[in-house]
Amino acid sequence: MMPTVDLNCDMGESYGAYSIGADGAVMPYVTSANIACGFHGGDPAVMRKTVQAALEHKVAVGAHPGLPDLVGFGRRTMDISAQEAYDMVVYQVGALMATAAALGTRVAHVKPHGALYNMAAAKPALAESIARAVRDVDDEFVFFGLAGSHMITAGEAMGLRTASEVFADRNYMPDGSLVPRGRPDAMVDSADAALRRAIDMVRRGTVRSVEGTEISLRADTICIHGDGPHAGEFARALRTGLEAAGIAVRATL
Amino acid sequence: MMPTVDLNCDMGESYGAYSIGADGAVMPYVTSANIACGFHGGDPAVMRKTVQAALEHKVAVGAHPGLPDLVGFGRRTMDISAQEAYDMVVYQVGALMATAAALGTRVAHVKPHGALYNMAAAKPALAESIARAVRDVDDEFVFFGLAGSHMITAGEAMGLRTASEVFADRNYMPDGSLVPRGRPDAMVDSADAALRRAIDMVRRGTVRSVEGTEISLRADTICIHGDGPHAGEFARALRTGLEAAGIAVRATL
Amino acid sequence: MMPTVDLNCDMGESYGAYSIGADGAVMPYVTSANIACGFHGGDPAVMRKTVQAALEHKVAVGAHPGLPDLVGFGRRTMDISAQEAYDMVVYQVGALMATAAALGTRVAHVKPHGALYNMAAAKPALAESIARAVRDVDDEFVFFGLAGSHMITAGEAMGLRTASEVFADRNYMPDGSLVPRGRPDAMVDSADAALRRAIDMVRRGTVRSVEGTEISLRADTICIHGDGPHAGEFARALRTGLEAAGIAVRATL
Amino acid sequence: MMPTVDLNCDMGESYGAYSIGADGAVMPYVTSANIACGFHGGDPAVMRKTVQAALEHKVAVGAHPGLPDLVGFGRRTMDISAQEAYDMVVYQVGALMATAAALGTRVAHVKPHGALYNMAAAKPALAESIARAVRDVDDEFVFFGLAGSHMITAGEAMGLRTASEVFADRNYMPDGSLVPRGRPDAMVDSADAALRRAIDMVRRGTVRSVEGTEISLRADTICIHGDGPHAGEFARALRTGLEAAGIAVRATL
Repeated sequence: MMPTVDLNCDMGESYGAYSIGADGAVMPYVTSANIACGFHGGDPAVMRKTVQAALEHKVAVGAHPGLPDLVGFGRRTMDISAQEAYDMVVYQVGALMATAAALGTRVAHVKPHGALYNMAAAKPALAESIARAVRDVDDEFVFFGLAGSHMITAGEAMGLRTASEVFADRNYMPDGSLVPRGRPDAMVDSADAALRRAIDMVRRGTVRSVEGTEISLRADTICIHGDGPHAGEFARALRTGLEAAGIAVRATL
Repeated sequence: MMPTVDLNCDMGESYGAYSIGADGAVMPYVTSANIACGFHGGDPAVMRKTVQAALEHKVAVGAHPGLPDLVGFGRRTMDISAQEAYDMVVYQVGALMATAAALGTRVAHVKPHGALYNMAAAKPALAESIARAVRDVDDEFVFFGLAGSHMITAGEAMGLRTASEVFADRNYMPDGSLVPRGRPDAMVDSADAALRRAIDMVRRGTVRSVEGTEISLRADTICIHGDGPHAGEFARALRTGLEAAGIAVRATL
Repeated sequence: MMPTVDLNCDMGESYGAYSIGADGAVMPYVTSANIACGFHGGDPAVMRKTVQAALEHKVAVGAHPGLPDLVGFGRRTMDISAQEAYDMVVYQVGALMATAAALGTRVAHVKPHGALYNMAAAKPALAESIARAVRDVDDEFVFFGLAGSHMITAGEAMGLRTASEVFADRNYMPDGSLVPRGRPDAMVDSADAALRRAIDMVRRGTVRSVEGTEISLRADTICIHGDGPHAGEFARALRTGLEAAGIAVRATL
Repeated sequence: MMPTVDLNCDMGESYGAYSIGADGAVMPYVTSANIACGFHGGDPAVMRKTVQAALEHKVAVGAHPGLPDLVGFGRRTMDISAQEAYDMVVYQVGALMATAAALGTRVAHVKPHGALYNMAAAKPALAESIARAVRDVDDEFVFFGLAGSHMITAGEAMGLRTASEVFADRNYMPDGSLVPRGRPDAMVDSADAALRRAIDMVRRGTVRSVEGTEISLRADTICIHGDGPHAGEFARALRTGLEAAGIAVRATL
């Protein structure tokens, strides 16, 4: 059977008069769009337009709930309770569900954003509460989480389909976590290297850590960053490179 | 056939550390709860607790979307476009739908809040856009609007079931609009008078305006105010008074 | 005596991860910066950086308070009371004053933003309340307002120095108000035409309305728009064109 | 010389339609009011009214800046940078300064709120950055901080006058930190015990920890909690009890 992988990207993070990201350039090459739901970015109009664009490109619509920290773009760790995480995920996923319903489509997956994602990857109680929220709203959702993290374990324990997420252009620590953004070696520099790593992760289930060790990980979906001047080119290169390597690129559902 | 009416109340308008309203005292006597959705009041935790309380009292759960003006409690007219109204209604209704779904129940109705309600009652284009948003999300929703206003016309034009709302404790202008809150005669002072007016509105479809003229209006649902020190007593008096007058009190669905 | 005029521009409207405007390109050519104060745009870090940039270019620092409507960028009319306008101006001006003080400088002027500006220009009670707020905080501030509008009258009645503002690239109605942005003839198309109009407004105190009539207006300060791809070029052209025409360009204080 | 102490209370934390706290009941008995500045609570109108009330009771006006987390009331730890702390303190202190100036008075002190206070007490870099912000805005401010914490050290290093704050109704850990609110023994139960502890802290500079050990601490100002049904009575009992014990109660300036 042909190996397959999903390509996902965070989208719809513009807000009111403020534009951010390169959604239009990236949308043609991805298969899943993680759409911001108004807490860390996004607003009701941006959500509608982004769902519409995903529909036009036959891209799966996903909810991308974040922390209530617009000025910090949801990237600052907050000491929220598991219940607070549950509630904010339910709220935001629901907001996107109605947006999708009004356009005749459905939310297919849920991927927490930024600090909420990182906190869930590291803290089992938070991962469990978020996965529970996703399941309680609709147990057909696919739950996206960092490959090998508590998010995947929690999603499976809730009976959800999960998608183990990997990052083509981020370096990994030997324990499978991402090299923090503050470090100079956080990113994989070249698009070629990122593509090679992506192919290896999908085909062989491995990636080399910053310290040279080989890590095993499952790659159901690859995250593409939607910002930066070359986001569109990178997305296209990754998409075409994966397909040229005999990997089918399609959404998780 | 026994005449029937619904009793609705705005609820779930607390926010974080801030409590407002007398939800606990009023909930036992109403049949529909209009639950704030986070824009003018309410937060994801308050929404969950309010849906839970409605479930416990077998009260119909409704969405109560408002303007994005927390500090003004959604009471200040804003010059929003019809599209902005559409988007903010979709977003907020969806947030409550997921909250309800996670608790095993459904949103039954939608009633705009505060200035959004007043604007929709007065402006056909806004009423039409809000009714369209409600229908696009789920055409099974009952749309609550001011009796005799553009909201009811717009809801019917969209093919929605509508509930014509009357106010037992507010005075009416001769044209069927409410006496503005700023006027000294905005409110009906006594609970007895409010009850008598409510019975007349349900049984005879009429109410006397502040200027003494008789107005015809349809009373599918009566709004009870959930604030003030005597909100619970008033709700109980109205509920028991209506039932004593041979009127069945039940939700619109 | 040489005719003089101030060139002002709205700046510091970025917010968190969101960038907007062309502050860096425009700053070298203006003499007054109207800095957003966190309600319609701007955040504490952006305010600090913008004051710092103004200092480096010897540009006068001004407060640019707006309505509490970030998602609407302060451009949607809101039905606020005169007292609410007073309070929000005091708050925002103070926030910028401390930002300036921490950098060793002072706020020189106050110019309301967007819908707050338009509302104040049209409603005497609002203009009066805003001018009172400015004076109550510091009666040394220069109050910027639409030339010929209630803002100028109100500022003068409060004993404030005022700066009558004109727009080089906007068309005027015969009554001296601006052609609304929605109309196709709202803007003056060419930079050359804008410059000629600016020179006439400063030298002769007149401008031709969209209907061809000549309007008298006082031009103490000219507003340059800080957005659009050519904002920097336009600012430079206006600055150098004014100076070439023998007009001194300097701040109002 | 007569021993003296200041009594301070967090005030002005209401927001829009939401009321919180017992400001009116407490104000007559305190000497310093820490007034919320709009981030964790408070809004421009509440700030004005609270400064006005402080003026009427000859209570010193202080700024009480918090984290930008209204729904969490500024009580949730956020991973902000030292620069972000600096900026948010400058902004909020300035907003209150203008509010005070418009009423003819001045801000006398600054006390961080909630999680920002606790974070500053525990992290030297944050304490230093906040103290620097206070000094950069006005080096005449008194800086309130937890007795014995990094806040006091940082304030002194900046050349600020500091006020070491103690809590009459909170229990202490042996290291001088407060027993976390989650623990059952966080609070001192009786008003009598709280008064005795307050007197000891002021007269002898000691308090007994939850583990029975005696802690040395400096008590320049005692924090009274402004919420709870008995806040006013407690404030009066503490004020009159301290004065009956021969301690002068007055503001730090």
